[in-house]
Amino acid sequence: MKNILIIGCGLIGSSVLRAVYSKKISKNIYIYEKSKKNILIIKKLKIRCKIINNFQKININFDLVIFCTPMSEYSKNISRINKFLTNKTIVTDVGSTKELSSKNVKKKLKKNITWIPSHPISGSEVSGAIHGNKNLFKNKWCVLIKEKNIKKIHLSKLKLFWKKLGAKVAIMNAKEHDFIFSVTSHLPHLIAYNLVKTATDFEKRKKMNLIQYSAGGLRDFSRIAASNEIMWRDIFFSNQKNIISAISLFIKNLNLFKNDIKLKNNSKIIKKLINTKKVRKKIIKLKQDINKPDFGRF
Amino acid sequence: MKNILIIGCGLIGSSVLRAVYSKKISKNIYIYEKSKKNILIIKKLKIRCKIINNFQKININFDLVIFCTPMSEYSKNISRINKFLTNKTIVTDVGSTKELSSKNVKKKLKKNITWIPSHPISGSEVSGAIHGNKNLFKNKWCVLIKEKNIKKIHLSKLKLFWKKLGAKVAIMNAKEHDFIFSVTSHLPHLIAYNLVKTATDFEKRKKMNLIQYSAGGLRDFSRIAASNEIMWRDIFFSNQKNIISAISLFIKNLNLFKNDIKLKNNSKIIKKLINTKKVRKKIIKLKQDINKPDFGRF
Repeated sequence: MKNILIIGCGLIGSSVLRAVYSKKISKNIYIYEKSKKNILIIKKLKIRCKIINNFQKININFDLVIFCTPMSEYSKNISRINKFLTNKTIVTDVGSTKELSSKNVKKKLKKNITWIPSHPISGSEVSGAIHGNKNLFKNKWCVLIKEKNIKKIHLSKLKLFWKKLGAKVAIMNAKEHDFIFSVTSHLPHLIAYNLVKTATDFEKRKKMNLIQYSAGGLRDFSRIAASNEIMWRDIFFSNQKNIISAISLFIKNLNLFKNDIKLKNNSKIIKKLINTKKVRKKIIKLKQDINKPDFGRF
Repeated sequence: MKNILIIGCGLIGSSVLRAVYSKKISKNIYIYEKSKKNILIIKKLKIRCKIINNFQKININFDLVIFCTPMSEYSKNISRINKFLTNKTIVTDVGSTKELSSKNVKKKLKKNITWIPSHPISGSEVSGAIHGNKNLFKNKWCVLIKEKNIKKIHLSKLKLFWKKLGAKVAIMNAKEHDFIFSVTSHLPHLIAYNLVKTATDFEKRKKMNLIQYSAGGLRDFSRIAASNEIMWRDIFFSNQKNIISAISLFIKNLNLFKNDIKLKNNSKIIKKLINTKKVRKKIIKLKQDINKPDFGRF
Protein backbone atom coordinates (compact mmCIF):
# COMPACT_ATOMS: atom_id res chain seq x y z
CA MET A 1 0.00 0.00 0.00
CA LYS A 2 1.49 3.26 -1.12
CA ASN A 3 -0.42 5.83 0.94
CA ILE A 4 -1.96 5.12 4.33
CA LEU A 5 -3.85 7.70 6.37
CA ILE A 6 -4.36 7.17 10.11
CA ILE A 7 -6.97 9.50 11.58
CA GLY A 8 -6.51 9.79 15.34
CA CYS A 9 -3.24 8.73 16.95
CA GLY A 10 -4.07 7.69 20.49
CA LEU A 11 -3.46 4.20 21.91
CA ILE A 12 -4.78 2.29 18.89
CA GLY A 13 -3.87 4.77 16.12
CA SER A 14 -0.29 5.16 17.31
CA SER A 15 0.01 1.38 17.67
CA VAL A 16 -1.13 0.99 14.04
CA LEU A 17 1.46 3.62 13.09
CA ARG A 18 4.25 1.85 14.99
CA ALA A 19 3.32 -1.55 13.53
CA VAL A 20 2.88 -0.30 9.93
CA TYR A 21 6.27 1.39 10.12
CA SER A 22 8.03 -1.53 11.77
CA LYS A 23 6.59 -4.06 9.27
CA LYS A 24 7.31 -1.74 6.32
CA ILE A 25 3.72 -2.05 5.11
CA SER A 26 3.52 1.36 3.45
CA LYS A 27 5.87 3.80 1.73
CA ASN A 28 3.98 6.88 2.89
CA ILE A 29 2.22 7.09 6.24
CA TYR A 30 0.03 10.14 6.89
CA ILE A 31 -1.32 11.06 10.28
CA TYR A 32 -4.19 13.34 11.23
CA GLU A 33 -4.17 14.12 14.95
CA LYS A 34 -5.36 17.17 16.88
CA SER A 35 -3.83 16.48 20.30
CA LYS A 36 -0.55 18.30 20.74
CA LYS A 37 0.46 15.80 23.42
CA ASN A 38 0.06 12.86 21.03
CA ILE A 39 1.88 14.71 18.22
CA LEU A 40 4.83 15.40 20.51
CA ILE A 41 5.11 11.73 21.40
CA ILE A 42 4.87 10.65 17.76
CA LYS A 43 7.60 13.09 16.76
CA LYS A 44 9.86 11.67 19.45
CA LEU A 45 9.44 8.17 17.97
CA LYS A 46 11.33 9.33 14.86
CA ILE A 47 9.03 7.31 12.61
CA ARG A 48 9.03 8.52 9.00
CA CYS A 49 5.48 9.84 8.59
CA LYS A 50 3.73 13.06 7.58
CA ILE A 51 1.52 14.86 10.06
CA ILE A 52 -1.33 16.59 8.25
CA ASN A 53 -2.47 19.84 9.84
CA ASN A 54 -4.71 21.04 7.08
CA PHE A 55 -6.41 18.86 4.45
CA GLN A 56 -6.74 21.91 2.15
CA LYS A 57 -3.04 21.87 1.50
CA ILE A 58 -2.58 18.29 0.30
CA ASN A 59 -3.32 16.35 -2.84
CA ILE A 60 -2.97 12.60 -2.32
CA ASN A 61 -5.05 9.55 -3.20
CA PHE A 62 -5.09 7.24 -0.18
CA ASP A 63 -5.01 3.46 -0.53
CA LEU A 64 -6.08 2.87 3.05
CA VAL A 65 -7.75 5.20 5.55
CA ILE A 66 -8.17 4.06 9.18
CA PHE A 67 -10.37 5.91 11.63
CA CYS A 68 -8.85 5.54 15.10
CA THR A 69 -10.76 8.33 16.87
CA PRO A 70 -13.75 7.85 19.17
CA MET A 71 -16.73 6.85 16.99
CA SER A 72 -18.54 10.14 17.62
CA GLU A 73 -15.80 11.92 15.64
CA TYR A 74 -16.05 9.85 12.41
CA SER A 75 -18.64 12.02 10.65
CA LYS A 76 -16.79 15.32 10.74
CA ASN A 77 -13.58 13.65 9.57
CA ILE A 78 -15.26 11.95 6.60
CA SER A 79 -16.23 15.36 5.22
CA ARG A 80 -12.56 16.34 5.44
CA ILE A 81 -11.21 13.32 3.52
CA ASN A 82 -13.91 12.45 0.94
CA LYS A 83 -12.09 14.17 -1.89
CA PHE A 84 -8.97 12.06 -1.40
CA LEU A 85 -10.81 8.76 -1.84
CA THR A 86 -10.92 6.79 -5.13
CA ASN A 87 -12.41 3.44 -6.15
CA LYS A 88 -9.12 1.87 -5.08
CA THR A 89 -9.27 3.22 -1.52
CA ILE A 90 -10.26 1.00 1.39
CA VAL A 91 -11.77 2.90 4.31
CA THR A 92 -11.85 1.17 7.70
CA ASP A 93 -11.96 1.96 11.42
CA VAL A 94 -11.14 0.33 14.75
CA GLY A 95 -14.37 1.11 16.60
CA SER A 96 -15.99 -1.22 19.11
CA THR A 97 -19.56 -1.23 17.73
CA LYS A 98 -20.56 -1.68 14.12
CA GLU A 99 -24.25 -1.49 13.16
CA LEU A 100 -25.03 2.16 13.93
CA SER A 101 -21.55 3.55 13.30
CA SER A 102 -21.39 1.84 9.93
CA LYS A 103 -24.79 3.23 8.96
CA ASN A 104 -23.57 6.72 9.88
CA VAL A 105 -20.31 6.34 7.97
CA LYS A 106 -22.13 5.18 4.83
CA LYS A 107 -24.39 8.22 4.96
CA LYS A 108 -21.42 10.59 4.89
CA LEU A 109 -18.97 8.67 2.70
CA LYS A 110 -18.69 9.51 -1.04
CA LYS A 111 -20.61 7.01 -3.25
CA ASN A 112 -18.91 3.76 -4.34
CA ILE A 113 -16.12 3.89 -1.79
CA THR A 114 -15.06 0.59 -0.21
CA TRP A 115 -15.95 0.65 3.48
CA ILE A 116 -14.96 -2.37 5.59
CA PRO A 117 -15.18 -1.82 9.36
CA SER A 118 -12.49 -3.43 11.56
CA HIS A 119 -12.41 -4.11 15.29
CA PRO A 120 -9.09 -5.18 16.77
CA ILE A 121 -9.74 -6.67 20.24
CA SER A 122 -6.79 -4.99 21.88
CA GLY A 123 -8.00 -2.14 24.06
CA SER A 124 -6.61 -1.19 27.44
CA GLU A 125 -7.50 1.01 30.39
CA VAL A 126 -4.83 3.48 29.31
CA SER A 127 -5.18 5.94 26.42
CA GLY A 128 -2.91 8.14 24.36
CA ALA A 129 0.01 7.70 21.98
CA ILE A 130 2.37 7.29 24.93
CA HIS A 131 0.97 3.81 25.58
CA GLY A 132 1.05 2.71 21.92
CA ASN A 133 2.88 -0.51 21.09
CA LYS A 134 3.84 -2.05 17.75
CA ASN A 135 2.91 -5.47 19.13
CA LEU A 136 -0.54 -4.43 20.39
CA PHE A 137 -2.34 -6.53 17.77
CA LYS A 138 -0.10 -9.57 17.93
CA ASN A 139 -2.12 -12.78 18.43
CA LYS A 140 -5.28 -10.74 19.12
CA TRP A 141 -8.51 -11.12 17.22
CA CYS A 142 -9.38 -8.49 14.65
CA VAL A 143 -12.98 -8.72 13.45
CA LEU A 144 -13.77 -7.50 9.93
CA ILE A 145 -17.35 -6.70 8.97
CA LYS A 146 -18.50 -7.90 5.58
CA GLU A 147 -20.80 -5.19 4.28
CA LYS A 148 -23.03 -5.80 1.22
CA ASN A 149 -21.38 -5.52 -2.25
CA ILE A 150 -17.83 -5.65 -0.91
CA LYS A 151 -15.35 -7.06 -3.42
CA LYS A 152 -13.38 -10.11 -2.32
CA ILE A 153 -10.13 -8.48 -3.37
CA HIS A 154 -10.67 -5.55 -1.01
CA LEU A 155 -11.62 -7.81 1.87
CA SER A 156 -8.50 -9.91 1.24
CA LYS A 157 -6.32 -6.82 1.17
CA LEU A 158 -7.60 -5.59 4.51
CA LYS A 159 -7.36 -9.08 5.98
CA LEU A 160 -3.72 -9.25 4.88
CA PHE A 161 -3.08 -5.82 6.40
CA TRP A 162 -4.23 -6.91 9.87
CA LYS A 163 -2.43 -10.24 9.55
CA LYS A 164 0.80 -8.38 8.84
CA LEU A 165 0.17 -6.48 12.08
CA GLY A 166 0.06 -9.85 13.86
CA ALA A 167 -3.71 -10.22 14.33
CA LYS A 168 -5.93 -13.28 13.81
CA VAL A 169 -8.79 -12.21 11.53
CA ALA A 170 -12.46 -13.22 11.95
CA ILE A 171 -15.17 -12.12 9.53
CA MET A 172 -18.80 -11.60 10.53
CA ASN A 173 -21.70 -9.24 9.95
CA ALA A 174 -22.33 -6.10 11.98
CA LYS A 175 -25.36 -7.47 13.80
CA GLU A 176 -23.53 -10.60 14.93
CA HIS A 177 -20.52 -8.52 15.99
CA ASP A 178 -22.56 -6.10 18.08
CA PHE A 179 -24.34 -8.91 19.86
CA ILE A 180 -21.15 -10.88 20.64
CA PHE A 181 -19.26 -7.88 22.00
CA SER A 182 -22.23 -6.61 23.98
CA VAL A 183 -21.79 -9.79 26.04
CA THR A 184 -18.00 -10.27 26.09
CA SER A 185 -16.91 -6.63 26.34
CA HIS A 186 -19.62 -3.96 26.70
CA LEU A 187 -21.54 -5.61 29.55
CA PRO A 188 -18.31 -6.39 31.50
CA HIS A 189 -17.21 -2.76 31.23
CA LEU A 190 -20.60 -1.46 32.28
CA ILE A 191 -20.70 -3.88 35.21
CA ALA A 192 -17.21 -2.82 36.29
CA TYR A 193 -18.19 0.87 36.17
CA ASN A 194 -21.34 0.06 38.15
CA LEU A 195 -19.47 -1.94 40.78
CA VAL A 196 -16.92 0.80 41.41
CA LYS A 197 -19.78 3.34 41.54
CA THR A 198 -21.61 1.16 44.09
CA ALA A 199 -18.47 0.85 46.26
CA THR A 200 -17.95 4.62 46.26
CA ASP A 201 -21.65 5.13 47.10
CA PHE A 202 -21.16 2.90 50.15
CA GLU A 203 -18.01 4.84 51.09
CA LYS A 204 -19.96 8.09 51.11
CA ARG A 205 -22.97 6.60 52.87
CA LYS A 206 -20.92 5.04 55.69
CA LYS A 207 -18.12 7.63 55.69
CA MET A 208 -15.55 4.84 55.61
CA ASN A 209 -12.36 4.33 53.63
CA LEU A 210 -13.21 1.05 51.92
CA ILE A 211 -10.99 1.42 48.87
CA GLN A 212 -7.82 0.68 50.85
CA TYR A 213 -9.10 -2.91 51.22
CA SER A 214 -9.77 -3.41 47.52
CA ALA A 215 -7.19 -6.17 46.98
CA GLY A 216 -9.85 -8.76 47.79
CA GLY A 217 -11.50 -8.35 44.39
CA LEU A 218 -12.59 -4.76 43.72
CA ARG A 219 -9.21 -3.70 42.31
CA ASP A 220 -9.66 -5.94 39.25
CA PHE A 221 -12.87 -4.15 38.33
CA SER A 222 -11.29 -0.75 38.90
CA ARG A 223 -8.86 -1.40 36.05
CA ILE A 224 -11.63 -1.87 33.49
CA ALA A 225 -13.61 0.98 35.06
CA ALA A 226 -10.66 3.30 34.36
CA SER A 227 -11.15 3.08 30.59
CA ASN A 228 -11.61 6.16 28.41
CA GLU A 229 -14.99 7.83 29.06
CA ILE A 230 -15.60 9.25 25.55
CA MET A 231 -14.92 5.92 23.89
CA TRP A 232 -17.19 4.07 26.29
CA ARG A 233 -20.01 6.62 26.17
CA ASP A 234 -19.95 6.15 22.37
CA ILE A 235 -20.05 2.35 22.74
CA PHE A 236 -22.93 2.37 25.24
CA PHE A 237 -25.00 4.72 23.10
CA SER A 238 -24.31 3.06 19.75
CA ASN A 239 -24.95 -0.51 20.95
CA GLN A 240 -27.89 0.53 23.12
CA LYS A 241 -30.32 -2.26 22.23
CA ASN A 242 -27.93 -5.20 22.78
CA ILE A 243 -26.51 -3.70 25.96
CA ILE A 244 -29.93 -3.10 27.47
CA SER A 245 -30.94 -6.68 26.74
CA ALA A 246 -27.66 -7.93 28.30
CA ILE A 247 -28.27 -5.81 31.42
CA SER A 248 -31.76 -7.27 31.72
CA LEU A 249 -30.52 -10.88 31.70
CA PHE A 250 -27.75 -9.92 34.11
CA ILE A 251 -30.26 -8.43 36.57
CA LYS A 252 -32.56 -11.43 36.21
CA ASN A 253 -29.64 -13.79 37.04
CA LEU A 254 -28.52 -11.55 39.90
CA ASN A 255 -31.95 -11.65 41.49
CA LEU A 256 -31.91 -15.46 41.27
CA PHE A 257 -28.45 -15.47 42.86
CA LYS A 258 -29.69 -13.16 45.64
CA ASN A 259 -32.60 -15.46 46.26
CA ASP A 260 -30.36 -18.55 46.43
CA ILE A 261 -28.24 -16.78 49.06
CA LYS A 262 -31.33 -15.71 51.00
CA LEU A 263 -32.65 -19.29 51.03
CA LYS A 264 -29.16 -20.79 51.53
CA ASN A 265 -29.79 -23.00 48.53
CA ASN A 266 -26.59 -25.04 48.70
CA SER A 267 -26.89 -27.22 45.59
CA LYS A 268 -27.88 -24.35 43.29
CA ILE A 269 -25.04 -22.10 44.50
CA ILE A 270 -22.41 -24.83 44.26
CA LYS A 271 -23.58 -25.75 40.72
CA LYS A 272 -23.39 -22.11 39.65
CA LEU A 273 -19.89 -21.64 41.08
CA ILE A 274 -18.53 -24.87 39.59
CA ASN A 275 -19.89 -24.03 36.13
CA THR A 276 -18.33 -20.58 36.02
CA LYS A 277 -14.99 -22.08 37.03
CA LYS A 278 -14.98 -24.12 33.82
CA VAL A 279 -15.19 -20.94 31.73
CA ARG A 280 -11.82 -19.72 33.04
CA LYS A 281 -10.19 -22.95 31.86
CA LYS A 282 -11.79 -22.53 28.43
CA ILE A 283 -10.55 -18.93 28.19
CA ILE A 284 -6.99 -19.99 29.00
CA LYS A 285 -7.19 -22.90 26.54
CA LEU A 286 -8.35 -20.47 23.85
CA LYS A 287 -5.31 -18.29 24.70
CA GLN A 288 -7.54 -15.37 25.61
CA ASP A 289 -5.65 -14.88 28.89
CA ILE A 290 -2.38 -15.87 30.51
CA ASN A 291 -2.18 -19.09 32.51
CA LYS A 292 -0.76 -17.61 35.68
CA PRO A 293 -2.57 -17.21 39.02
CA ASP A 294 -3.61 -13.63 39.71
CA PHE A 295 -2.61 -12.61 36.13
CA GLY A 296 1.00 -13.15 37.27
CA ARG A 297 0.79 -9.91 39.27
CA PHE A 298 2.88 -11.10 42.22
CA MET B 1 5.96 -19.58 69.91
CA LYS B 2 6.87 -23.14 70.76
CA ASN B 3 3.99 -25.14 69.26
CA ILE B 4 1.93 -24.00 66.30
CA LEU B 5 -0.92 -26.02 64.80
CA ILE B 6 -2.15 -25.28 61.27
CA ILE B 7 -5.49 -26.90 60.48
CA GLY B 8 -5.98 -27.20 56.73
CA CYS B 9 -3.01 -26.86 54.39
CA GLY B 10 -4.37 -25.55 51.11
CA LEU B 11 -3.33 -22.26 49.51
CA ILE B 12 -3.43 -20.18 52.71
CA GLY B 13 -2.50 -22.88 55.23
CA SER B 14 0.51 -24.06 53.27
CA SER B 15 1.59 -20.43 52.78
CA VAL B 16 1.42 -19.91 56.56
CA LEU B 17 3.49 -23.09 56.95
CA ARG B 18 6.10 -21.94 54.42
CA ALA B 19 6.33 -18.46 55.97
CA VAL B 20 6.45 -19.68 59.60
CA TYR B 21 9.23 -22.10 58.69
CA SER B 22 11.20 -19.61 56.62
CA LYS B 23 10.97 -16.88 59.30
CA LYS B 24 11.80 -19.41 62.06
CA ILE B 25 8.75 -18.31 64.05
CA SER B 26 8.17 -21.61 65.80
CA LYS B 27 10.20 -24.57 67.01
CA ASN B 28 7.47 -27.10 66.38
CA ILE B 29 4.97 -26.82 63.53
CA TYR B 30 2.07 -29.27 63.48
CA ILE B 31 -0.22 -29.77 60.50
CA TYR B 32 -3.67 -31.30 60.28
CA GLU B 33 -4.70 -31.94 56.68
CA LYS B 34 -6.96 -34.57 55.16
CA SER B 35 -6.15 -34.16 51.45
CA LYS B 36 -3.54 -36.67 50.31
CA LYS B 37 -2.63 -34.39 47.41
CA ASN B 38 -1.78 -31.51 49.76
CA ILE B 39 0.15 -33.81 52.13
CA LEU B 40 2.26 -35.09 49.25
CA ILE B 41 3.17 -31.55 48.23
CA ILE B 42 4.02 -30.55 51.80
CA LYS B 43 6.26 -33.60 52.20
CA LYS B 44 8.12 -32.65 49.03
CA LEU B 45 8.87 -29.19 50.49
CA LYS B 46 11.08 -30.82 53.10
CA ILE B 47 9.89 -28.41 55.77
CA ARG B 48 10.46 -29.69 59.31
CA CYS B 49 6.89 -30.17 60.55
CA LYS B 50 4.74 -32.92 62.00
CA ILE B 51 1.66 -34.09 60.16
CA ILE B 52 -1.02 -35.19 62.61
CA ASN B 53 -3.23 -38.03 61.42
CA ASN B 54 -5.00 -38.76 64.66
CA PHE B 55 -5.50 -36.33 67.55
CA GLN B 56 -5.99 -39.28 69.94
CA LYS B 57 -2.32 -40.11 69.71
CA ILE B 58 -0.80 -36.76 70.69
CA ASN B 59 -0.32 -34.81 73.88
CA ILE B 60 0.75 -31.23 73.19
CA ASN B 61 -0.30 -27.81 74.44
CA PHE B 62 -0.50 -25.50 71.47
CA ASP B 63 0.53 -21.84 71.68
CA LEU B 64 -1.16 -20.91 68.42
CA VAL B 65 -3.85 -22.72 66.44
CA ILE B 66 -4.83 -21.40 62.97
CA PHE B 67 -7.90 -22.63 61.14
CA CYS B 68 -7.16 -22.53 57.41
CA THR B 69 -10.02 -24.75 56.20
CA PRO B 70 -13.27 -23.52 54.65
CA MET B 71 -15.35 -21.92 57.41
CA SER B 72 -17.95 -24.68 57.31
CA GLU B 73 -15.34 -27.10 58.66
CA TYR B 74 -14.35 -25.13 61.78
CA SER B 75 -16.90 -26.68 64.15
CA LYS B 76 -15.93 -30.31 63.72
CA ASN B 77 -12.23 -29.46 64.09
CA ILE B 78 -12.76 -27.50 67.31
CA SER B 79 -14.14 -30.63 68.96
CA ARG B 80 -10.94 -32.42 67.92
CA ILE B 81 -8.54 -29.87 69.41
CA ASN B 82 -10.30 -28.48 72.52
CA LYS B 83 -8.33 -30.66 74.90
CA PHE B 84 -4.99 -29.31 73.67
CA LEU B 85 -5.88 -25.68 74.44
CA THR B 86 -4.80 -23.83 77.60
CA ASN B 87 -5.20 -20.27 78.86
CA LYS B 88 -1.97 -19.48 77.02
CA THR B 89 -3.22 -20.64 73.61
CA ILE B 90 -4.30 -18.17 70.95
CA VAL B 91 -6.84 -19.59 68.50
CA THR B 92 -7.30 -17.80 65.18
CA ASP B 93 -8.42 -18.43 61.61
CA VAL B 94 -8.04 -16.94 58.14
CA GLY B 95 -11.72 -16.91 57.10
CA SER B 96 -13.29 -14.18 54.97
CA THR B 97 -16.33 -13.40 57.14
CA LYS B 98 -16.36 -12.83 60.87
CA GLU B 99 -19.67 -12.20 62.65
CA LEU B 100 -21.43 -15.52 62.18
CA SER B 101 -18.31 -17.70 62.02
CA SER B 102 -16.98 -16.17 65.22
CA LYS B 103 -20.30 -16.77 66.97
CA ASN B 104 -20.18 -20.41 65.89
CA VAL B 105 -16.57 -20.86 67.00
CA LYS B 106 -17.29 -19.40 70.44
CA LYS B 107 -20.15 -21.83 70.92
CA LYS B 108 -17.86 -24.82 70.37
CA LEU B 109 -14.60 -23.58 71.87
CA LYS B 110 -13.68 -24.56 75.45
CA LYS B 111 -14.42 -21.77 77.98
CA ASN B 112 -11.80 -19.02 78.57
CA ILE B 113 -9.78 -19.73 75.47
CA THR B 114 -8.39 -16.70 73.60
CA TRP B 115 -10.09 -16.47 70.20
CA ILE B 116 -8.94 -13.69 67.87
CA PRO B 117 -10.15 -14.06 64.27
CA SER B 118 -7.73 -13.07 61.47
CA HIS B 119 -8.36 -12.31 57.80
CA PRO B 120 -5.31 -12.00 55.57
CA ILE B 121 -6.38 -10.29 52.30
CA SER B 122 -4.35 -12.55 50.08
CA GLY B 123 -6.65 -14.99 48.30
CA SER B 124 -6.34 -16.13 44.72
CA GLU B 125 -8.36 -17.98 42.11
CA VAL B 126 -6.16 -21.02 42.61
CA SER B 127 -6.40 -23.41 45.55
CA GLY B 128 -4.28 -26.13 47.10
CA ALA B 129 -0.86 -26.46 48.73
CA ILE B 130 0.80 -26.51 45.31
CA HIS B 131 0.11 -22.78 44.91
CA GLY B 132 1.27 -21.83 48.42
CA ASN B 133 3.93 -19.15 48.73
CA LYS B 134 5.96 -17.98 51.71
CA ASN B 135 5.56 -14.38 50.50
CA LEU B 136 1.78 -14.57 50.09
CA PHE B 137 1.16 -12.20 53.01
CA LYS B 138 3.94 -9.74 52.26
CA ASN B 139 2.65 -6.14 52.15
CA LYS B 140 -0.96 -7.38 52.25
CA TRP B 141 -3.50 -6.34 54.83
CA CYS B 142 -4.34 -8.76 57.61
CA VAL B 143 -7.41 -7.74 59.59
CA LEU B 144 -7.64 -8.86 63.23
CA ILE B 145 -10.97 -8.83 65.01
CA LYS B 146 -11.03 -7.50 68.54
CA GLU B 147 -13.52 -9.63 70.41
CA LYS B 148 -14.77 -8.65 73.87
CA ASN B 149 -12.50 -9.39 76.87
CA ILE B 150 -9.42 -10.04 74.75
CA LYS B 151 -6.19 -9.31 76.60
CA LYS B 152 -3.87 -6.76 75.00
CA ILE B 153 -0.93 -9.12 75.32
CA HIS B 154 -2.65 -11.77 73.22
CA LEU B 155 -3.69 -9.29 70.56
CA SER B 156 -0.12 -7.96 70.43
CA LYS B 157 1.26 -11.48 70.09
CA LEU B 158 -1.00 -12.29 67.15
CA LYS B 159 -0.30 -8.91 65.57
CA LEU B 160 3.42 -9.61 65.79
CA PHE B 161 2.89 -13.05 64.27
CA TRP B 162 1.26 -11.63 61.13
CA LYS B 163 3.79 -8.80 60.93
CA LYS B 164 6.59 -11.37 60.93
CA LEU B 165 4.83 -12.99 57.97
CA GLY B 166 5.10 -9.62 56.19
CA ALA B 167 1.51 -8.39 56.57
CA LYS B 168 0.21 -4.93 57.51
CA VAL B 169 -2.20 -5.37 60.41
CA ALA B 170 -5.54 -3.54 60.82
CA ILE B 171 -7.80 -4.05 63.83
CA MET B 172 -11.58 -3.68 63.69
CA ASN B 173 -14.73 -5.32 64.97
CA ALA B 174 -16.53 -8.18 63.24
CA LYS B 175 -19.49 -6.09 62.13
CA GLU B 176 -17.30 -3.44 60.53
CA HIS B 177 -15.17 -6.13 58.86
CA ASP B 178 -18.13 -7.96 57.36
CA PHE B 179 -19.58 -4.76 55.96
CA ILE B 180 -16.28 -3.57 54.41
CA PHE B 181 -15.49 -6.88 52.74
CA SER B 182 -19.06 -7.38 51.51
CA VAL B 183 -18.38 -4.31 49.33
CA THR B 184 -14.71 -4.74 48.41
CA SER B 185 -14.56 -8.50 48.01
CA HIS B 186 -17.82 -10.47 48.35
CA LEU B 187 -19.92 -8.35 45.97
CA PRO B 188 -17.14 -8.27 43.31
CA HIS B 189 -16.87 -12.07 43.43
CA LEU B 190 -20.62 -12.53 43.22
CA ILE B 191 -20.84 -10.07 40.32
CA ALA B 192 -18.02 -11.87 38.50
CA TYR B 193 -19.78 -15.24 38.95
CA ASN B 194 -23.01 -13.67 37.73
CA LEU B 195 -21.39 -12.08 34.69
CA VAL B 196 -19.76 -15.32 33.56
CA LYS B 197 -23.09 -17.12 34.15
CA THR B 198 -24.90 -14.51 32.02
CA ALA B 199 -22.36 -14.88 29.19
CA THR B 200 -22.73 -18.67 29.18
CA ASP B 201 -26.54 -18.28 29.22
CA PHE B 202 -26.27 -16.13 26.07
CA GLU B 203 -23.94 -18.72 24.49
CA LYS B 204 -26.52 -21.44 25.00
CA ARG B 205 -29.44 -19.25 23.94
CA LYS B 206 -27.81 -18.13 20.69
CA LYS B 207 -25.75 -21.29 20.12
CA MET B 208 -22.64 -19.18 19.54
CA ASN B 209 -19.06 -19.48 20.73
CA LEU B 210 -18.73 -16.14 22.49
CA ILE B 211 -16.00 -17.09 24.95
CA GLN B 212 -13.30 -17.04 22.28
CA TYR B 213 -13.77 -13.26 22.12
CA SER B 214 -13.43 -12.70 25.85
CA ALA B 215 -10.23 -10.63 25.70
CA GLY B 216 -12.34 -7.47 25.46
CA GLY B 217 -13.23 -7.59 29.15
CA LEU B 218 -14.92 -10.85 30.16
CA ARG B 219 -11.64 -12.70 30.79
CA ASP B 220 -10.84 -10.49 33.80
CA PHE B 221 -14.08 -11.51 35.48
CA SER B 222 -13.49 -15.17 34.65
CA ARG B 223 -10.39 -15.18 36.86
CA ILE B 224 -12.31 -14.17 39.97
CA ALA B 225 -15.21 -16.43 38.97
CA ALA B 226 -12.80 -19.37 39.04
CA SER B 227 -12.34 -19.15 42.82
CA ASN B 228 -13.00 -22.11 45.11
CA GLU B 229 -16.71 -22.93 45.31
CA ILE B 230 -16.82 -24.27 48.88
CA MET B 231 -15.01 -21.25 50.27
CA TRP B 232 -17.29 -18.86 48.41
CA ARG B 233 -20.52 -20.68 49.24
CA ASP B 234 -19.48 -20.35 52.90
CA ILE B 235 -18.79 -16.61 52.46
CA PHE B 236 -22.08 -15.89 50.70
CA PHE B 237 -24.10 -17.78 53.32
CA SER B 238 -22.30 -16.41 56.38
CA ASN B 239 -22.35 -12.76 55.25
CA GLN B 240 -25.87 -13.02 53.86
CA LYS B 241 -27.31 -9.77 55.19
CA ASN B 242 -24.51 -7.46 54.05
CA ILE B 243 -24.23 -9.16 50.66
CA ILE B 244 -27.96 -8.90 50.00
CA SER B 245 -27.91 -5.20 50.84
CA ALA B 246 -24.89 -4.71 48.54
CA ILE B 247 -26.68 -6.54 45.70
CA SER B 248 -29.71 -4.30 46.17
CA LEU B 249 -27.69 -1.08 45.81
CA PHE B 250 -25.85 -2.60 42.85
CA ILE B 251 -29.13 -3.39 41.06
CA LYS B 252 -30.53 0.05 41.87
CA ASN B 253 -27.43 1.68 40.32
CA LEU B 254 -27.53 -0.66 37.34
CA ASN B 255 -31.13 0.27 36.59
CA LEU B 256 -30.15 3.96 36.69
CA PHE B 257 -27.25 3.21 34.34
CA LYS B 258 -29.58 1.32 31.98
CA ASN B 259 -31.95 4.26 31.98
CA ASP B 260 -29.16 6.74 31.21
CA ILE B 261 -28.17 4.59 28.22
CA LYS B 262 -31.79 4.34 27.08
CA LEU B 263 -32.21 8.13 27.24
CA LYS B 264 -28.67 8.78 25.93
CA ASN B 265 -28.07 11.02 28.93
CA ASN B 266 -24.61 12.27 27.96
CA SER B 267 -23.68 14.37 30.99
CA LYS B 268 -24.75 11.73 33.54
CA ILE B 269 -22.86 8.93 31.78
CA ILE B 270 -19.69 10.99 31.33
CA LYS B 271 -19.77 12.05 35.00
CA LYS B 272 -20.19 8.43 36.11
CA LEU B 273 -17.31 7.20 33.94
CA ILE B 274 -14.94 9.99 34.99
CA ASN B 275 -15.63 9.40 38.68
CA THR B 276 -14.93 5.66 38.54
CA LYS B 277 -11.65 6.37 36.75
CA LYS B 278 -10.43 8.27 39.82
CA VAL B 279 -10.88 5.17 41.99
CA ARG B 280 -8.29 3.24 39.97
CA LYS B 281 -5.72 5.98 40.65
CA LYS B 282 -6.54 5.84 44.36
CA ILE B 283 -6.14 2.06 44.42
CA ILE B 284 -2.72 2.28 42.79
CA LYS B 285 -1.67 5.09 45.13
CA LEU B 286 -2.71 2.93 48.09
CA LYS B 287 -0.54 0.13 46.64
CA GLN B 288 -3.53 -2.18 46.32
CA ASP B 289 -2.62 -2.99 42.71
CA ILE B 290 0.34 -2.73 40.36
CA ASN B 291 0.81 0.41 38.29
CA LYS B 292 1.08 -1.27 34.90
CA PRO B 293 -1.49 -1.14 32.10
CA ASP B 294 -3.46 -4.37 31.75
CA PHE B 295 -1.92 -5.69 35.03
CA GLY B 296 1.35 -5.95 33.06
CA ARG B 297 -0.03 -9.03 31.28
CA PHE B 298 1.54 -8.28 27.90
